[in-house]
Amino acid sequence: MSEQKIPYKIYLEESEMPKAWYNVRADMKNKPAPLLNPGTHQPMKPEELAPVFCEELIKQELDNDTAYFDIPKEILDYYKTFRPSPLVRAYNLEKKLGTPAKIYYKFEGNNTSGSHKLNSAIAQAYYAKKQGLKGVTTETGAGQWGTALSMACAYFGLDCKVFMVKVSYEQKPFRREVMRTYGADVTPSPSETTQIGKKILAEYPGTTGSLGCAISEAVEVATSTEGYRYVLGSVLNQVLLHQSVIGLETKAALDKYNIKPDIIIGCAGGGSNLGGLVSPFMGEKLRGEADYRIIAVEPSSCPSFTRGKYAYDFCDTGMVCPLAKMYTLGSGFIPAPNHAGGLRYHGMSSILSQLYDDGYMEAVSVPQVKVFEAAEEFARAEGILPAPESSHAIRVAIDEALKCKETGEEKTIVFGLTGTGYFDMVAYEKYHDGKMDDYVPSDEELEKYMSKLPKID
Amino acid sequence: MSEQKIPYKIYLEESEMPKAWYNVRADMKNKPAPLLNPGTHQPMKPEELAPVFCEELIKQELDNDTAYFDIPKEILDYYKTFRPSPLVRAYNLEKKLGTPAKIYYKFEGNNTSGSHKLNSAIAQAYYAKKQGLKGVTTETGAGQWGTALSMACAYFGLDCKVFMVKVSYEQKPFRREVMRTYGADVTPSPSETTQIGKKILAEYPGTTGSLGCAISEAVEVATSTEGYRYVLGSVLNQVLLHQSVIGLETKAALDKYNIKPDIIIGCAGGGSNLGGLVSPFMGEKLRGEADYRIIAVEPSSCPSFTRGKYAYDFCDTGMVCPLAKMYTLGSGFIPAPNHAGGLRYHGMSSILSQLYDDGYMEAVSVPQVKVFEAAEEFARAEGILPAPESSHAIRVAIDEALKCKETGEEKTIVFGLTGTGYFDMVAYEKYHDGKMDDYVPSDEELEKYMSKLPKID
Repeated sequence: MSEQKIPYKIYLEESEMPKAWYNVRADMKNKPAPLLNPGTHQPMKPEELAPVFCEELIKQELDNDTAYFDIPKEILDYYKTFRPSPLVRAYNLEKKLGTPAKIYYKFEGNNTSGSHKLNSAIAQAYYAKKQGLKGVTTETGAGQWGTALSMACAYFGLDCKVFMVKVSYEQKPFRREVMRTYGADVTPSPSETTQIGKKILAEYPGTTGSLGCAISEAVEVATSTEGYRYVLGSVLNQVLLHQSVIGLETKAALDKYNIKPDIIIGCAGGGSNLGGLVSPFMGEKLRGEADYRIIAVEPSSCPSFTRGKYAYDFCDTGMVCPLAKMYTLGSGFIPAPNHAGGLRYHGMSSILSQLYDDGYMEAVSVPQVKVFEAAEEFARAEGILPAPESSHAIRVAIDEALKCKETGEEKTIVFGLTGTGYFDMVAYEKYHDGKMDDYVPSDEELEKYMSKLPKID
Repeated sequence: MSEQKIPYKIYLEESEMPKAWYNVRADMKNKPAPLLNPGTHQPMKPEELAPVFCEELIKQELDNDTAYFDIPKEILDYYKTFRPSPLVRAYNLEKKLGTPAKIYYKFEGNNTSGSHKLNSAIAQAYYAKKQGLKGVTTETGAGQWGTALSMACAYFGLDCKVFMVKVSYEQKPFRREVMRTYGADVTPSPSETTQIGKKILAEYPGTTGSLGCAISEAVEVATSTEGYRYVLGSVLNQVLLHQSVIGLETKAALDKYNIKPDIIIGCAGGGSNLGGLVSPFMGEKLRGEADYRIIAVEPSSCPSFTRGKYAYDFCDTGMVCPLAKMYTLGSGFIPAPNHAGGLRYHGMSSILSQLYDDGYMEAVSVPQVKVFEAAEEFARAEGILPAPESSHAIRVAIDEALKCKETGEEKTIVFGLTGTGYFDMVAYEKYHDGKMDDYVPSDEELEKYMSKLPKID
């Protein structure tokens, strides 16, 4: 097929949308390590997870064998309001870079949550409603997950309580109002409204918070309130399952034009976008059907993959959640108050951690100022103002495209543009004013928390 | 075609995108009145407009006869990065309202300007660049036009100076940073940087500004700076011409599924979105080929159509621009600092004014609190957080759908969802907190300015 025939934006027809989520675990030889009971260090049983999570989601969480899960009609109906998302050929960016590389991005930001988070939020809200629950609690970093969950809860008529990482709450005041528009309660975390919040505040006065803290608070409220459960926007297997819709659509769009990517790039906080984007490609790789370079990009300020340890750790600062085996910086690690709000989690999805450990993907960490340089370059060429999180992937996509310029290789690069930066203008302002810092934690600082990892046989 | 087969979102293929803009003036029996020289009261000649506007745009402005203008390839290439925009069937809103009406909206907010404004911005920047200019100046109300123009100028490599209505500048601080990201200079208006700004500040100390003031300042800078011209985001014939791409796509999408609308609704500030959306439908109506109810919706606080006079008036507060015949509240009218930032202009497009005067369309004004009620209802059902401006159209679309519920009529309603409200969270916050007012100007207040309309034979 000639180059000219590939449109700027490849949209699937509604009828071409995926009808089932793909579970990459089914194709993994080394399955991700199971969640462990923090008391007994034994694998968590469904009944132990039931006070925290919805039943159907527990099944999805623990199932390492079923390759496809049908997407319920109610979820598909909502997906249709904002999906399929476009796969965009970055013709203008290519031209500006003068690269022979072909750059594509899967743009997940064209919905009011501003990100891919809605893909899992709507699924989790649906299963909560189906179980007859009254409401759900959650944490949010940059506010995208909280917004997505608020939207999903408004749609299905569920209460929604959001604990928002304090640094984001303060930097993104408008996010709170968006969540309120959809009817959610939003509390900055750590807060005085929970036992664990009080404890963290006493231990680290003046802390700007972290996802780990906010998770602890949300779980405490969910488990102590009748008719409530906790939902999580990243890290968990179930979330990667739902997010596989990103990768499935991307693959379908590429297949439609017989495009075979060489490199697939995604930013990595807890791993939900990256895991979702790469799942079907990783499946091919695991089954030996195809090969791709798959690159996880994380901020230098929170380098779980590139500088963390692969070990069992607590998912939350309060250590109330099950233990997960993952690349981690230690559950006590709280990143500097930089602006990659959604990439501040100390650990990484167990699925991706296992795949990384098995050598199926690469990881790279990038400093913040370089990320904003890439963001601005992208915005001016492609129009879209990207989220700082997404811009980590842009940075590496541009770097790879520039390498192609040197070598003359016409590689096909696909990256995930997870969201928009409309609520990140405080960070952009700092960048414009030259006030953005490139904080990178020292080895000593990281070791301080990683030395406290729980001892598991 | 069965109801089921209409998808949630109707996307045109790239190849189905309009290749030419439609000029509704060609089909008008009563042409819009010409712009007049404010000194001589004679129709403006192209050479008189040349110090202010780009040459090609002057041709488009003055041409009442050519029905179609080819869209240059460079503009089409940029259109392809954010167009075609989806025509969405509001299945979820219909269900929530329990109406037999079929509601569609043309969603123009899925680009970083957050609105339809980019359609004309990219055209105007292109013609400025083609003419070899160094830069352009403009005004912006809500900030959407300024953002759009900043994006367009970044793309074509033009300088961009934006005068932003002070009330919006203060309520939407993040807009400034978005414009900066695209390299624009932004000044709150009225400012001390221009002669006319100083004069307005002296006359009305503490004024929150208006589009009329900002236009005067932008024109002053354009005409006094080498290599600069002025560009405008609404009101002018050329802008309605460019915005016809909205209506052409809407019509093509409807035609694809054999859908015939009964009612077409758009919010009206200066008229660019409304004029663009309705153009091809109005053309059919003017040629006697079809009939539609076409409804303009304006805020009660700035009711040009519903309470203004149809007369020649100044386009700007400083009275430096040509005179235009339009429905106007008087160029001295400055609306209360409410939050319909983009609907604060004292006048209305000459084309729409003539069509309204000839009875081809209706107009209705709506109070602000009711508008935000509709916005929230829409957001919760359809996901998208709408701009306050766009929500004026939502209000009337819901009202018409509820009338259908009473009568049992299955009318097809199409409205323009011009943009998103991500930068309007201060207004949403006021609404949530019950602090939003419904200011409606008194007859005496309006008469004060309308009595000062220039006397033209």
